[in-house]
Amino acid sequence: MNKGFTLWFTGKPASGKTTLANLTAKTLIQRGLPVEIFDGEILRRELWPELGFSSEDRYKNARRIAYFCHLFNRNGVNCVVASIAPYQSLRRELREKLENYIEVSLQASDKTLRSRDSQGFYSAAGRGALKNFTGIDDPYEEPTDPDLTIYTDSDTEENSLELIITTLQEMNFLEPASADYSEAEKKQIDDRLRALGYL
Amino acid sequence: MNKGFTLWFTGKPASGKTTLANLTAKTLIQRGLPVEIFDGEILRRELWPELGFSSEDRYKNARRIAYFCHLFNRNGVNCVVASIAPYQSLRRELREKLENYIEVSLQASDKTLRSRDSQGFYSAAGRGALKNFTGIDDPYEEPTDPDLTIYTDSDTEENSLELIITTLQEMNFLEPASADYSEAEKKQIDDRLRALGYL
Repeated sequence: MNKGFTLWFTGKPASGKTTLANLTAKTLIQRGLPVEIFDGEILRRELWPELGFSSEDRYKNARRIAYFCHLFNRNGVNCVVASIAPYQSLRRELREKLENYIEVSLQASDKTLRSRDSQGFYSAAGRGALKNFTGIDDPYEEPTDPDLTIYTDSDTEENSLELIITTLQEMNFLEPASADYSEAEKKQIDDRLRALGYL
Repeated sequence: MNKGFTLWFTGKPASGKTTLANLTAKTLIQRGLPVEIFDGEILRRELWPELGFSSEDRYKNARRIAYFCHLFNRNGVNCVVASIAPYQSLRRELREKLENYIEVSLQASDKTLRSRDSQGFYSAAGRGALKNFTGIDDPYEEPTDPDLTIYTDSDTEENSLELIITTLQEMNFLEPASADYSEAEKKQIDDRLRALGYL
């Protein structure tokens, strides 16, 4: 059994973290890997709604996710995480804690971020109606040493996924796609896709 | 890959949950199974110290543990949990949420519980210096349908472990002990024992 990896998508709100995390998780499962996905916003809402958006609470949210990723990884289960992780010291901590940590930085222009923001978070934060909003009144420190940077202004979802897959292959976390799976493997892939709601 | 199980030790403070959970986890790993252990008190201290001992916070602590057990189980990793889970409705919820939930109820007389309480929690709670203490001023509802009950007044650790192992075998969650493991299996067992601090 190989040790698993944690692929962490960091980026400002609306930079594409959740979309690319799901696309990647689905693809990795289809490639035969065991995968769990953790979305920082979903865990906040479902498990620890008492956490707010202070710097301290942002650390807590990310640390809780990393704690479980570490356990999944040592059992050979790969984790895909969509969570802002806005501070460089926080991301450095993630890299230290997780043996196979892969950081994907998602970049997009302010114009693009605002245009995607269907729920109006950016404008609410701009008016001061939403506090501690990353990129407005809470800092987003640009990653200084990501394993991959994706510019979601120009990279399509398909291109972005290809960049991610290529990076994982180059880092030896993923083998080239297999042409054929056994019936048992196909069933397992379907079970995993179903468990994560992709089927 | 088989679905994993969650073996949940419920019982009052000092009933032996942590001791038996560790002994069981270690034994299951030695029998070749992937296992993670979750101790309610350790998770409270390390991950969510903001949770207190109100009824609501006890639900939250157990639900967070169960959330991750569910994910581990569906990836074939078995979970051993030491966490009071003092209410019948809470344990019913655990059984509903977890596909392979096995409840072990630990019972001991008040005299035995107090005699084991080296940190003086029972006497502090008795004096009113410690609030919401299970069995003193917070209820412990006796399990009505545990899969196994162990009386730790009279059952030794060795006997208790044997009861647990027999129960798991009878429920088809554990095969009879294998006589020989390959070198790769032995290495994996050692790695798992080391990861959990048993080696």
